[in-house]
Amino acid sequence: MDRKTTQIRRHRRKVTMKYRALAGLFIAASTTLVAWAAVRGTGDLGIIIERTSGSITVVETTQHTVLGRIPGLGDLSHASAVFSRDTRYAYVFGRDGGLTKIDLLEQKISHRVIQAGNSIGGAISQDGRLIAVSNYEPGGVRVFDSETLQPVADIPAIHGAGDAVSRVVGLVDAPGNRFVFSLFDAGEIWIADFSDRDNPEILKLTGAGNQPYDALITPDGRYYIAGLFGEDGLALVDLWQPQQGIRRILPDYGRGEEKLPVYKMPHLEGWAAAGDHLFVPAVGRHEVIAINRHDWSEAQRIPVHGQPVFVMARPDGRHLWVNFALPDNDTVQVIDASTMAVVHELKPGKGVLHMEFTPRGEAVWVSVRDTDRVNVYDTGSFRQITAIDVEKPSGIFFTARAHMTGL
Amino acid sequence: MDRKTTQIRRHRRKVTMKYRALAGLFIAASTTLVAWAAVRGTGDLGIIIERTSGSITVVETTQHTVLGRIPGLGDLSHASAVFSRDTRYAYVFGRDGGLTKIDLLEQKISHRVIQAGNSIGGAISQDGRLIAVSNYEPGGVRVFDSETLQPVADIPAIHGAGDAVSRVVGLVDAPGNRFVFSLFDAGEIWIADFSDRDNPEILKLTGAGNQPYDALITPDGRYYIAGLFGEDGLALVDLWQPQQGIRRILPDYGRGEEKLPVYKMPHLEGWAAAGDHLFVPAVGRHEVIAINRHDWSEAQRIPVHGQPVFVMARPDGRHLWVNFALPDNDTVQVIDASTMAVVHELKPGKGVLHMEFTPRGEAVWVSVRDTDRVNVYDTGSFRQITAIDVEKPSGIFFTARAHMTGL
Repeated sequence: MDRKTTQIRRHRRKVTMKYRALAGLFIAASTTLVAWAAVRGTGDLGIIIERTSGSITVVETTQHTVLGRIPGLGDLSHASAVFSRDTRYAYVFGRDGGLTKIDLLEQKISHRVIQAGNSIGGAISQDGRLIAVSNYEPGGVRVFDSETLQPVADIPAIHGAGDAVSRVVGLVDAPGNRFVFSLFDAGEIWIADFSDRDNPEILKLTGAGNQPYDALITPDGRYYIAGLFGEDGLALVDLWQPQQGIRRILPDYGRGEEKLPVYKMPHLEGWAAAGDHLFVPAVGRHEVIAINRHDWSEAQRIPVHGQPVFVMARPDGRHLWVNFALPDNDTVQVIDASTMAVVHELKPGKGVLHMEFTPRGEAVWVSVRDTDRVNVYDTGSFRQITAIDVEKPSGIFFTARAHMTGL
Repeated sequence: MDRKTTQIRRHRRKVTMKYRALAGLFIAASTTLVAWAAVRGTGDLGIIIERTSGSITVVETTQHTVLGRIPGLGDLSHASAVFSRDTRYAYVFGRDGGLTKIDLLEQKISHRVIQAGNSIGGAISQDGRLIAVSNYEPGGVRVFDSETLQPVADIPAIHGAGDAVSRVVGLVDAPGNRFVFSLFDAGEIWIADFSDRDNPEILKLTGAGNQPYDALITPDGRYYIAGLFGEDGLALVDLWQPQQGIRRILPDYGRGEEKLPVYKMPHLEGWAAAGDHLFVPAVGRHEVIAINRHDWSEAQRIPVHGQPVFVMARPDGRHLWVNFALPDNDTVQVIDASTMAVVHELKPGKGVLHMEFTPRGEAVWVSVRDTDRVNVYDTGSFRQITAIDVEKPSGIFFTARAHMTGL
């Protein structure tokens, strides 16, 4: 090796070392930045759907701040979300069949598939390993691996003699790694048991009634109740004894003979269980209906300001917060569950679309679409704590839902 | 500058650069490691108390693994824990008056104070901003800022004519940023309202009975029920109407006239609410007692294998898991809440001290002290999923407790 080569090598080495030093420091700095951004608990996180822009806003409920905004989720009208059991990821179900997995810590889309042409909600299994989506077009339910969003199962919801596939609604998770859902076009309720993931068993219950359009499951995961679009009454399944089939309850629940104008069909996920009663929005009437949880009879009708859309129980069950369809969607009323009387009224602004309580209920976040704001209220004093700027906010979902059945 | 100096400088520079490079890479690597360790969701984390070594083991319930071990927590006999609302931090209450704040992501002690000489449990306020600890020595309740563990309030629990301070037990949080607790030496139940943190209001209810020794709050945060060491019966407070005072219920609950040998007083936090009943361990008898939630009468006595210690409801309320005092502490029985019959029995090993369900109840973790293991079971099939090595495990606490009242 001559002297020149040695010099060149030395030079190269020096330069390399210089770059290594810089690269090292750069990596250190950037990694630290990533770590700063992402090392935090995820128990107080949430997302807000920005309906018109196809984005979500990531928030935290301790200091009531926005952490970031993630675009590119497609058509988010009627969107809903569930969370991974570690509360790091949100799964957002878009109307256009898009299923998007969001990393709340890195604030980015982690996985995204277009799994159907038109879908209407989803659920995460009890063990957190499966995501199910209910579809309008092509109908049926599709099930995905929650880690990868790879397909696991396809349940076509074929009913009757031919090969017609029903639109599916009211999909919820239930204990025992089951998914329960309603067939709009078939009037059936199906229970898919994924205890053995590779060999799901499906129990098909007939006679739900005409056009089940939405459903809820009680917080203990025992009772599944579907509302009917095509007739009055509700369809009930006891998931502890599903072989007993569907029972019809509350024959007067619905639009009735008068065929009242209905400005927005009430959301059944918003049904509230509090004490001995379930509270449900009446269809087309300015009433909230209290149902006796023991015999499923109607206990009382509570007069309210307009046609209720969501009736949400504060986590302690003492108060119910109610929002309304047009033309009364600027108002929220609060009902006391024990006296069944309206005890407070708020006017957050036009377009109150959704409400979400913090996990232990000390605060409630209210989407006010037309003011582009989410108002945060203290549920004890009804005092407004703050307001957060969000573009045309609709659904609000906090990560504590990960730990609840049917949410 | 002569040539020699230049050479030395160059050499120094080279060495400096070399070290910079190494340092940079080292920082990069270590920061990345920290980031890898710490960037994760916190919804599936938990801690296990290692009673004899004064340590806790940090676990995650998705893959059922141990993430780390943190020593230096003092005397952890009878220790319990609560979690911050972001589920990043655990607050561990030691028997020696130690209050330790653990960072579950960095896996280290973040703050620690010795706040009393002998304490017996604690709670975190609804808003997550206050930690309260109930003390035996010097008695009373101390309240701390959850961020810093700086003292916020001292409630001495002075009762009667003199300045005697009562030992305090059965401390729980309740909606409305309240703490509720029982005065062992005074037979009183106090409600401290911290809605205005700087001016807490205390409501003192007398006539609880002789020596309240532990208590529970129903999951909705409405009813506080204390067990009595000095006489039979239970003390009930309706926290929606606390001014109505204390009501005595279940007059036959306790050791009775026979003064049965009691190997371990049952834990009341383990009382289980399922459907229309509360299930409580009988004192000294081989029975679990079902209480009617509507009129607080005794509904049924269920014969079990030994003297029950914890009666825990699976989150869906369908099954109750029961462990036992010596000499039967090698056994766990499972009761069906609807038939009130024992449907399964397990023998995990000697020294079954505690059980904790995963948030949605698909699995249960069982501490088996004498085998130095925590067994994990599938609650549907009762199949053992895995076992985790932990030194003399006792209490198991998962972060989803952050979102529940009274846990």
